[in-house]
Amino acid sequence: MIYVVGHKNPDTDSICSAIAYAELKKKLGIEAKPARQGDPNPETKFVLEKFNVELPEILTDGSNKKVILIDHSDVAQSLDNLDKAEIVEIIDHHKIGDITTPNPIFFLAMPVGCTATVVKTLYDYFEVEIDKKIAGILLSAILSDTVIFKSATTTEKDVKAAEELAEIAEVEDIRSLGIEIKSKLSAIDKLTAREIIKRDFKDFDMSGNRVGIGQIELVDLNIIKDRKEEIIRDMEKLKREGGYHSVFLMLTDIINEGTELLVVTDDPAIVKKAFGKNLDGNSIWLKKVMSRKKQVVPPLEKAFSY
Amino acid sequence: MIYVVGHKNPDTDSICSAIAYAELKKKLGIEAKPARQGDPNPETKFVLEKFNVELPEILTDGSNKKVILIDHSDVAQSLDNLDKAEIVEIIDHHKIGDITTPNPIFFLAMPVGCTATVVKTLYDYFEVEIDKKIAGILLSAILSDTVIFKSATTTEKDVKAAEELAEIAEVEDIRSLGIEIKSKLSAIDKLTAREIIKRDFKDFDMSGNRVGIGQIELVDLNIIKDRKEEIIRDMEKLKREGGYHSVFLMLTDIINEGTELLVVTDDPAIVKKAFGKNLDGNSIWLKKVMSRKKQVVPPLEKAFSY
Repeated sequence: MIYVVGHKNPDTDSICSAIAYAELKKKLGIEAKPARQGDPNPETKFVLEKFNVELPEILTDGSNKKVILIDHSDVAQSLDNLDKAEIVEIIDHHKIGDITTPNPIFFLAMPVGCTATVVKTLYDYFEVEIDKKIAGILLSAILSDTVIFKSATTTEKDVKAAEELAEIAEVEDIRSLGIEIKSKLSAIDKLTAREIIKRDFKDFDMSGNRVGIGQIELVDLNIIKDRKEEIIRDMEKLKREGGYHSVFLMLTDIINEGTELLVVTDDPAIVKKAFGKNLDGNSIWLKKVMSRKKQVVPPLEKAFSY
Repeated sequence: MIYVVGHKNPDTDSICSAIAYAELKKKLGIEAKPARQGDPNPETKFVLEKFNVELPEILTDGSNKKVILIDHSDVAQSLDNLDKAEIVEIIDHHKIGDITTPNPIFFLAMPVGCTATVVKTLYDYFEVEIDKKIAGILLSAILSDTVIFKSATTTEKDVKAAEELAEIAEVEDIRSLGIEIKSKLSAIDKLTAREIIKRDFKDFDMSGNRVGIGQIELVDLNIIKDRKEEIIRDMEKLKREGGYHSVFLMLTDIINEGTELLVVTDDPAIVKKAFGKNLDGNSIWLKKVMSRKKQVVPPLEKAFSY
């Protein structure tokens, strides 16, 4: 049995692409099942319920397992004891990470907005028909990851894949589905500060420094205005607990297309180096910045490497 | 301009796949040219002359260059100053190496016998016609890397790709072409011991130890019998000069399908751990072993990791 599993703190792409790719493998005659490294967020729950797809089982330890890694190629974002797992494939759309293998494997990364687009490409390559349900969750993953095609990572391939998937899933209004999906994560009133920070949080090793970057996408930044101080205090706490050099939280406004970046760091100059702007308190506004992967991680990695 | 370049100490696959992939890029409207990190071996020279294809220019330093890496994903096998290059794609068929990127890129590795098979797959995917000359060198690369389909790395995909390429290249007898190609590297009488060792030599970092593994494929091991002592003395010299923990040389008999492994090492027990056999002097016979990548590197990496 091969487990198809996305990254830690799973988002909609990570869970839906794992489900869809496991399904493709099964249709190609390979025993595979999807898994997830953590609880689904409210957006992912909504998507799975809407398209009537079962939540995959949980898997956090790779020991003695055959695994296909989805939506990541970094050890820090992968299963515990990854060195004791047999990695048989990697399917991703991020920068190439530090995972290595002792044997040749199939590794496909594409510079597109969503792993679901890569999975769609592979269905097409193998000429395997996509089920209606699977088309629905792949479409949802694309709308989620590309922020309804507004993220800088969005490519023509994502838009084309989404249109084709919408046809199969019989979704008539793609944009309405997108707003419905994205609004699920804007409901933050019932969340603790830590839940907001950790909603979609990733660890990075930047030139030997531990750096954590969270992101929350909101239909309106006013929703979160009154809670910023509380969140920053908790980011400071998380920084101490986790031994981080810096903890960032992207408050991304998906309608006005920009990000307020909250920052707690040992070295405030790193923000100026990376983004050309001085911190205003614990925050800077980054116009047009929507993508952690494409617009936040690369300048930070460069700034840390100096 | 994007440079398409294979690994250090280039073999036929590394040079021919770079040429063919640069050609595909050009046909897709992208400015690209092939390059090589070193001199072609006699086999590669023969192949390029036979199909009337120009030798690519040399490129050893990645500084300020846009590059597509072919047939490797390890820093040690790549361009000097790779951290100053912009890697735009990686096309490979080896184990996943330690190259990382700051941005998402196209990375395709397939567990097949030859990068040329991956390149052929991409021509087919983009529905681009393969020129007769290009088909000839891709076919030659497959015959070379899979040792005329005898290597353990050979897959059905390699055989199918070779058959389709032979048709385009108007090669009637694939096996005869294979033997003609492979015999070029059996001509060792004019080579120094160092040239024999370095013919196809790769550096590895195995659990912090520097390990070098060369391979020479011969139509008959008797050709090299009288020179073994001289070669082992020179391997000892290379080991000292390069600060290696171990230097291995695979003398691969492509007709009888097996490898005599010559060994100079700080720890002879590593050979027993890796291959279950004690050294006989400086040598062991490995029946059916033809592939460094699949049958020599993985057991050695495992042995070093204990």
